[in-house]
Amino acid sequence: MPLIRIDVIEGRSEADLAAISAAVHRGLTECFHVPERDRFQVITEHRAGRLIYNAGYLGVDRTDGIVLVQVFLSSGRTPELKQSFYSRVAELIVETAHTRPQDVMITLVENERADWSFGNGVAQYLTLPKEQWK
Amino acid sequence: MPLIRIDVIEGRSEADLAAISAAVHRGLTECFHVPERDRFQVITEHRAGRLIYNAGYLGVDRTDGIVLVQVFLSSGRTPELKQSFYSRVAELIVETAHTRPQDVMITLVENERADWSFGNGVAQYLTLPKEQWK
Amino acid sequence: MPLIRIDVIEGRSEADLAAISAAVHRGLTECFHVPERDRFQVITEHRAGRLIYNAGYLGVDRTDGIVLVQVFLSSGRTPELKQSFYSRVAELIVETAHTRPQDVMITLVENERADWSFGNGVAQYLTLPKEQWK
Repeated sequence: MPLIRIDVIEGRSEADLAAISAAVHRGLTECFHVPERDRFQVITEHRAGRLIYNAGYLGVDRTDGIVLVQVFLSSGRTPELKQSFYSRVAELIVETAHTRPQDVMITLVENERADWSFGNGVAQYLTLPKEQWK
Repeated sequence: MPLIRIDVIEGRSEADLAAISAAVHRGLTECFHVPERDRFQVITEHRAGRLIYNAGYLGVDRTDGIVLVQVFLSSGRTPELKQSFYSRVAELIVETAHTRPQDVMITLVENERADWSFGNGVAQYLTLPKEQWK
Repeated sequence: MPLIRIDVIEGRSEADLAAISAAVHRGLTECFHVPERDRFQVITEHRAGRLIYNAGYLGVDRTDGIVLVQVFLSSGRTPELKQSFYSRVAELIVETAHTRPQDVMITLVENERADWSFGNGVAQYLTLPKEQWK
């Protein structure tokens, strides 16, 4: 169910982008129990000057290696789970994608189960029993 | 009021993109009673590997013909209305845009009437009587 | 905290894009008391036909000079504050970015404080005292 938008400044390798994508998805499966096959992401590379960030807000030292991750997902995760997600995704991106931990920015937007159709014009989370969400 | 973001993988014809755009808008007008002139959409074509989807989640068989439709709109539609919207948009896209029903993915994000300004620095839904929302 | 997505039709000057970016940020700092360093924006230029708008909805006369501003921010601003924000941003964009007031469209999407991580895998708004949000 989550839809992910990942924005970076152009110049990242294909391998790094793949690693970022995989890291976000693994964080979702591990921390939010998102099903393994529930993976939908849009990655956009921006020219210099089109992804604007402050290099010091909240005392975090950011660079052009910034990775902006916006997650649209159904509501229901606690602040504690969200914290664990941020921590795990940052850890995985740092390990695998030549990215500094300071450069991993994540933000969530919540909606409800009725707000998703995964094809065929059906709101599957309303019509399919939860055991079949896979 | 809705703002629509449509994401596809590059290679679709202009005619197909126009048909997708029109189908989403017609679904909004028919099912959500959005005014005919209330049409604001951003269509983005992505290189292969930049729009990532699972080809089987929830038993739906997806292809690179995937059409990802994200609708930002004011709250207030029931789950039943949302279901009718998904169904109608998928039907129209399939009929007009060389797209398989399995490849139509739709997700909604709700906000409130105060969250919209349509120009001139005014929150029109707070200041204009509803009869003039057209 | 806000994440801003700004969409325009290609052909705007670098100076205009910079002025639009600055105007939105100044509106946030003046009207919503967003910290000066809390600036995170993604600007995307679209080919003709990819940013679709109605040229007359709600009686506002729009052109290809349209500037679409989507603001993701924590909840808590009143409708009056939001109105002041729309007004100020439109005023600043008109003054500085060769844009007509009719062409400034703004929409907000709200989330919560737990929905933000600004780096290092931490949900700073949950862990940092508010005096340090700068």
